Amino acid sequence: MQKLADGLHKFHAEVCGTHQDLFRNLARGQRPEALFITCSDSRINPNLITQTQPGDIFIVRNVGNIVPPYGAGNGSEAAAMEFAVAHLGIKHIIVCGHTHCGAMRGLLDSAGLDELPAVKGWLQHAELTRRLVQENYPHIEGEDRLTITVEENVLAQIENLRTHPTIRARLARGELSLYAWVFKIETGQVFQFEASTGQFGPIGDAAPPSALPESTVYRRAV
Amino acid sequence: MQKLADGLHKFHAEVCGTHQDLFRNLARGQRPEALFITCSDSRINPNLITQTQPGDIFIVRNVGNIVPPYGAGNGSEAAAMEFAVAHLGIKHIIVCGHTHCGAMRGLLDSAGLDELPAVKGWLQHAELTRRLVQENYPHIEGEDRLTITVEENVLAQIENLRTHPTIRARLARGELSLYAWVFKIETGQVFQFEASTGQFGPIGDAAPPSALPESTVYRRAV
Amino acid sequence: MQKLADGLHKFHAEVCGTHQDLFRNLARGQRPEALFITCSDSRINPNLITQTQPGDIFIVRNVGNIVPPYGAGNGSEAAAMEFAVAHLGIKHIIVCGHTHCGAMRGLLDSAGLDELPAVKGWLQHAELTRRLVQENYPHIEGEDRLTITVEENVLAQIENLRTHPTIRARLARGELSLYAWVFKIETGQVFQFEASTGQFGPIGDAAPPSALPESTVYRRAV
Amino acid sequence: MQKLADGLHKFHAEVCGTHQDLFRNLARGQRPEALFITCSDSRINPNLITQTQPGDIFIVRNVGNIVPPYGAGNGSEAAAMEFAVAHLGIKHIIVCGHTHCGAMRGLLDSAGLDELPAVKGWLQHAELTRRLVQENYPHIEGEDRLTITVEENVLAQIENLRTHPTIRARLARGELSLYAWVFKIETGQVFQFEASTGQFGPIGDAAPPSALPESTVYRRAV
Amino acid sequence: MQKLADGLHKFHAEVCGTHQDLFRNLARGQRPEALFITCSDSRINPNLITQTQPGDIFIVRNVGNIVPPYGAGNGSEAAAMEFAVAHLGIKHIIVCGHTHCGAMRGLLDSAGLDELPAVKGWLQHAELTRRLVQENYPHIEGEDRLTITVEENVLAQIENLRTHPTIRARLARGELSLYAWVFKIETGQVFQFEASTGQFGPIGDAAPPSALPESTVYRRAV
Amino acid sequence: MQKLADGLHKFHAEVCGTHQDLFRNLARGQRPEALFITCSDSRINPNLITQTQPGDIFIVRNVGNIVPPYGAGNGSEAAAMEFAVAHLGIKHIIVCGHTHCGAMRGLLDSAGLDELPAVKGWLQHAELTRRLVQENYPHIEGEDRLTITVEENVLAQIENLRTHPTIRARLARGELSLYAWVFKIETGQVFQFEASTGQFGPIGDAAPPSALPESTVYRRAV
Ligand SMILES: [Zn+2]
Ligand SMILES: [Zn+2]
Ligand SMILES: [Zn+2]
Ligand SMILES: [Zn+2]
Ligand SMILES: [Zn+2]
Ligand SMILES: [Zn+2]
Repeated sequence: MQKLADGLHKFHAEVCGTHQDLFRNLARGQRPEALFITCSDSRINPNLITQTQPGDIFIVRNVGNIVPPYGAGNGSEAAAMEFAVAHLGIKHIIVCGHTHCGAMRGLLDSAGLDELPAVKGWLQHAELTRRLVQENYPHIEGEDRLTITVEENVLAQIENLRTHPTIRARLARGELSLYAWVFKIETGQVFQFEASTGQFGPIGDAAPPSALPESTVYRRAV
Repeated sequence: MQKLADGLHKFHAEVCGTHQDLFRNLARGQRPEALFITCSDSRINPNLITQTQPGDIFIVRNVGNIVPPYGAGNGSEAAAMEFAVAHLGIKHIIVCGHTHCGAMRGLLDSAGLDELPAVKGWLQHAELTRRLVQENYPHIEGEDRLTITVEENVLAQIENLRTHPTIRARLARGELSLYAWVFKIETGQVFQFEASTGQFGPIGDAAPPSALPESTVYRRAV
Repeated sequence: MQKLADGLHKFHAEVCGTHQDLFRNLARGQRPEALFITCSDSRINPNLITQTQPGDIFIVRNVGNIVPPYGAGNGSEAAAMEFAVAHLGIKHIIVCGHTHCGAMRGLLDSAGLDELPAVKGWLQHAELTRRLVQENYPHIEGEDRLTITVEENVLAQIENLRTHPTIRARLARGELSLYAWVFKIETGQVFQFEASTGQFGPIGDAAPPSALPESTVYRRAV
Repeated sequence: MQKLADGLHKFHAEVCGTHQDLFRNLARGQRPEALFITCSDSRINPNLITQTQPGDIFIVRNVGNIVPPYGAGNGSEAAAMEFAVAHLGIKHIIVCGHTHCGAMRGLLDSAGLDELPAVKGWLQHAELTRRLVQENYPHIEGEDRLTITVEENVLAQIENLRTHPTIRARLARGELSLYAWVFKIETGQVFQFEASTGQFGPIGDAAPPSALPESTVYRRAV
Repeated sequence: MQKLADGLHKFHAEVCGTHQDLFRNLARGQRPEALFITCSDSRINPNLITQTQPGDIFIVRNVGNIVPPYGAGNGSEAAAMEFAVAHLGIKHIIVCGHTHCGAMRGLLDSAGLDELPAVKGWLQHAELTRRLVQENYPHIEGEDRLTITVEENVLAQIENLRTHPTIRARLARGELSLYAWVFKIETGQVFQFEASTGQFGPIGDAAPPSALPESTVYRRAV
Repeated sequence: MQKLADGLHKFHAEVCGTHQDLFRNLARGQRPEALFITCSDSRINPNLITQTQPGDIFIVRNVGNIVPPYGAGNGSEAAAMEFAVAHLGIKHIIVCGHTHCGAMRGLLDSAGLDELPAVKGWLQHAELTRRLVQENYPHIEGEDRLTITVEENVLAQIENLRTHPTIRARLARGELSLYAWVFKIETGQVFQFEASTGQFGPIGDAAPPSALPESTVYRRAV
């Protein structure tokens, strides 16, 4: 803890001094551009990997970057999405998983979760992922199985996310974009799901952020 | 979103290049020292304010840095605490609120939440805070009322946190320490609750991190 | 009730007599082709409108043909879908709303539901529909507003349906098809949502049943 | 699915043509006489076995014709009963099980449900039935055990049904009648529970529909 | 509190001294004859009004002597009934309300409960009572309305109680008896519901305890 | 049951006769001094052991004297606390366990609870106790282990109790006192937890009731 205290001191003395205006401005309010939902894993720092400043992204972090469907769960994630979209007017939501995710590892090895009942209960909201992997990838094992679980999970959580009323209403009128990302810890690269190919590919100069296509949307001739 | 994509690229090209070893090492596992529970507010970057590296702190972020009691809620926060303490062996938990918190502002103005039903539902887990402020600080208004709500809320959430089985078992044998912090956006300072004085004071050279005292603990003469 | 008793007698005496083999065969088991989810409304008879025999379609009926997302609700609908798909091997699921639906009328007039608290609670699972209609169709009123609510609701419930693990696993490997239908009471016609046009159109000779496209699906190069 | 599409076409072309007035009338509203709660099983067609027309009976169908008690479950069945009784003014409720019910078979073989967790969870609302059969019929096995489970289950669900406020208020003033039926697939006959004998017997010419007696009712001398 | 401490001392010094054998015997186990469910109201002492000793009756006390149906609520009452009946082998269950009950007064005046949200939530399990009184006794007011609510509530809670699996299984084989009582504070008399008359009458020499009749029970010719 | 009926008669004839004024007074209302939360165990009579009269203590009794945290459970205990503290103005809450508690015995032997699923579910609210005992007292067995579980459980339930909004608000302003007691059946003595020593000691002449210290409380310089 002393390390953290030293850090706090250094931050206050060095960083805040040179960014005084930024923080004074921020005290007046926030206007983040995106809602970033990612894992609690200590190896992820959303601001670092997106090279963003305080005030730029609204962040939800839980074990396994999970978004329970509307009406399931206690609404921690539901509240964050509603606050971000309906109150702050955010127009982009990113669900970002990561390689070597301990939560996804637990999902694949439920016996190992017997000593962690609260984690086991929480991962019930990723049953959507577990079942798909179990039924559709019988022959893939080891680290490959873990990686595919991480990838399928960001897509599954996007599915859950679409059941939230605030989200669907705005998706339907084209005012909200969703992104499915995976952060590869070993290289520091971020991959995104590209619906046109049905594949994950690195985001970069040649590949700008690619929003997921709308789900079934009714185009009523009014 | 282009800004974020540019950031991802810059991070991969510049930061990862110079920290190649760090990220390769991190890919093998995480050993964070503390669990840091804070608000989703975009103006907070836990790694920045503690000047810590990826891998140092396990992070939970939700609207209002709330920790529902054991058995209430869906266990997002319960799962994170269990994973952090029982699986990763973390020995320090920090609940960190912040000034100008929109969630706490909402808590004080429930009428304003009628358009945000999911937020309203989630803030039910901070009713502990709301009621205390309503009954015990009738004459404090405006920004002062908001600040005191932020401060009381970190203490109230610590109270909730103590009902989680994994937490209490380790608190009772002295293997876990709890901290109640508030981040002051306008100055970049972090204040901690010091039980000896019953006050919040800045953490710094003269004031190292001060763990909260144990709650009622039975010292059985074995 | 005497009418029903007379009907039972007539059925037993006349219908069963001429279909003895059908019923004896059915006693050995069922192999329905589709799961048909529709409203409890007395004016709908799924077997009549599809001209199917006992044994042909597995039927769920509730107020408003609603399918709560996975984890929300007690699982009446979740259980039916799992039983139909995983146990009976059904490969087609139809969600069928209908014009003049009293449940959808209630959804649009929540004040009118104050005397019907259980209905109000249940319609919370159609909040996805209500919010979309409220935000996206501000100028449409009266019967048109009701009809569009009925239409949007079958699409919204399909969205909820996609969060069920059994469903998603099979959708992903192309073994399950979903259909969004609306039964028009006044003419006896059934309309289906056609994703290619984003419109509802009558099912008929020129328009065979049109399954909804898959949602975001990962096509992993194995 | 082509079969269903052909049926839709045939229905529209042939049936609706000859019943144009019926459907036009129905578009104005419904006035069903009874609420019919039965299993989702494809072999049951409530309108067929009662020889009733569209508009005659309001229908709820779920796996096992279950009615969770008030406050348990998500209220799908609670909402239907409230809508039927308080909104439509229905005065008769029939709970109708059937022989060879797969849901009841699952209830007796819970090990077989390990692959169907949603079904298992839902059948918790029939634990009332399971426990009674397990404790009170230790020596009855095979198809007999299944049949008795089906029979006991309709009575158990009636018990659950009596805990719904709307139901009890009307039962107490004699404005609502309850019926416990079992449909025998192999013969097409419907049996009813007759409280006077404590037995199930066929409904027919000699035996008109027999409403269940009131439960404990207070006859206050006003 | 000093009064209680004095009482504890007096009890230990005077009562225990003369009943040493009773308490030593009780330390070996309990074999209570009845489960007594009554209100938390301070004016009721079940052992006093039945003139029973420690060890004689197993007691559940909550606000309003409420028994949520099976599956509703957290199971405090469900657990007590299961423990009493299945573990201790108790064969009699008494639900005992009382005149001047503050909980029932609250049930009739829900506006008055706005400041008591937890009480309001809990009384949802007595909605069965509230609705019946509201619909069936429109002209009875004041203390009479309160008394009839108390009386109807013990019958309503018996209805809820019948949905618990352990209870129904034993009721069906005649091994359990249920009693509906009301304690009249002003006179110290206890009234019981007598099903034969449909009235409440005093228990006494001429009127021994009268168990409620079974609900609908299937008498299968085995 | 005849014994109870005889008792009722004796109570009415003998006790009420001599205490006519007490009961007539009580009919006007209650003003209990303390809320007494204890086990349903038949061997406990709170009025007897505190030598108090009807009207003196408000009593909650459930299996294991458990107080689920705020938001967990259905609120039976939450409602009682709110009614006692906010409505009746009670200023003292006692949680009183007892030696030889069958509920705590069940908590230590969860395998033995497989036949008592409702009890098992309810004891989930004492998981806080079970885990602490399991992790912190590995070498204590038999009756000693049971006794320590009883003792730790009253402290754990106090922890849960502190999460209720009504409680915390009043604790913070010093208007409410909490007590952790254990009743020793074999001797009739009551022990209290004394925070100054961290031990349980007999309440008596030398040791008046000792309220638990406040948990973390903010002393704001207003
Ligand atoms: Zn992770
Ligand atoms: Zn905040
Ligand atoms: Zn409808
Ligand atoms: Zn069936
Ligand atoms: Zn009362
Ligand atoms: Zn006990």
